Amino acid sequence: MKSIIIASTSTVHGSGSLEYLLDELKVHFKSADEILFIPYARPGGITHDEYTAKVAEPFKKIGKTVRGIHAFDDPKKAILEAKGIFTGGGNTFVLVNQLYKKDVLSSIKEAVNNGTPYLGTSAGSNICGLTMNTTNDMPIVYPPSFKTLGLVPFNINPHYLDPNPNSTHMGETRETRIKEFHAFNTQPVIGLREGSWIEVNGENVTLKGNLEARIFEYGKAPYEIPTNSDLKFLM
Amino acid sequence: MKSIIIASTSTVHGSGSLEYLLDELKVHFKSADEILFIPYARPGGITHDEYTAKVAEPFKKIGKTVRGIHAFDDPKKAILEAKGIFTGGGNTFVLVNQLYKKDVLSSIKEAVNNGTPYLGTSAGSNICGLTMNTTNDMPIVYPPSFKTLGLVPFNINPHYLDPNPNSTHMGETRETRIKEFHAFNTQPVIGLREGSWIEVNGENVTLKGNLEARIFEYGKAPYEIPTNSDLKFLM
Repeated sequence: MKSIIIASTSTVHGSGSLEYLLDELKVHFKSADEILFIPYARPGGITHDEYTAKVAEPFKKIGKTVRGIHAFDDPKKAILEAKGIFTGGGNTFVLVNQLYKKDVLSSIKEAVNNGTPYLGTSAGSNICGLTMNTTNDMPIVYPPSFKTLGLVPFNINPHYLDPNPNSTHMGETRETRIKEFHAFNTQPVIGLREGSWIEVNGENVTLKGNLEARIFEYGKAPYEIPTNSDLKFLM
Repeated sequence: MKSIIIASTSTVHGSGSLEYLLDELKVHFKSADEILFIPYARPGGITHDEYTAKVAEPFKKIGKTVRGIHAFDDPKKAILEAKGIFTGGGNTFVLVNQLYKKDVLSSIKEAVNNGTPYLGTSAGSNICGLTMNTTNDMPIVYPPSFKTLGLVPFNINPHYLDPNPNSTHMGETRETRIKEFHAFNTQPVIGLREGSWIEVNGENVTLKGNLEARIFEYGKAPYEIPTNSDLKFLM
């Protein structure tokens, strides 16, 4: 049974890394003593080792060890044998580029479809959608494709940010960007605010956390849905 | 002699489209009665016709007509015969994708190197740099490459935005994003604030407008340069 947490962010303001999610993660990863970590998104350009060490800290609090995929000779095998998988945030272009280079997208999909619990935050959540076309990241490298895992049949926009009514900046708002996305693409987009996540349990797909999410469907005005909403209507 | 204006934005807050640049544009386009407009970036997904009509308004104030490149049977010929070229803002991925589809990047480069005055704003400025890797736009389509015109030997970050010290949002600041760019690329990046532009006149490359620009060089701490700075030190 598929078991996935697709989180907007690893960290909410004023709290430690993954802290707001730890109670959930205890349950989510109950059958895993060790988590396979995919550090490819390299936030701020840090190394895979540095990133893995950083992520090990919050997991230690719930009694889990963390091992980075870069420490394995055979990354595909590491994925298929993992008891739990976490892909962290950073730059989605860097992440997707490396996932293609290592040719592991299909392995992750296979493992998750076979029931390996998966956690994604930010860039690691973007890749759960059909494509990475709704990332907020800067395109600092050119990946072979924007196609991603398609674990859910829509796209994710993590760190969703409401327009600032006082801004004098002329750059596009997030809502304008997603509207532009729908001039060229038809799949729905979920704007996930920081502190929200999507929980996939088998056939059930539910919005979690304290906040509403903003839904962008092709040809419709965007609208809000409350937490605990069933997202099956988008599927 | 090369004659290029690379502007951060078409519009500064509280003023009409191109208004802050019109005095410059009168001089820049003095030998052109008609401007060839490249509307491919399609802001908000508007049509090429709509975008061209919108851009014609400010140019009318300085006695210029505007014709969209989509109205020509042979876009390459239109570029090479143009008296002046303007590429407007919108989505850089959409713009670059269409420039590759129409195979006109080399024509624009040839025209500009032969002295045709060029104006770019926002996405139309991004393409003046070596690559589009430092755009702020959402990757809503997948272009064949991120390589752009290389009219200047650095990258542009238009709509440059200083970090907001009061923000509780955990998404990356612009400065963090450009730092990440330098984990994978070595060319300098110019953070151009709204109201700033770069003027290229033959071999002279100068920062213009009222504001400072922020310079990001590989392996150095970012720093500010005042307006009217000669940018040849980056070349």
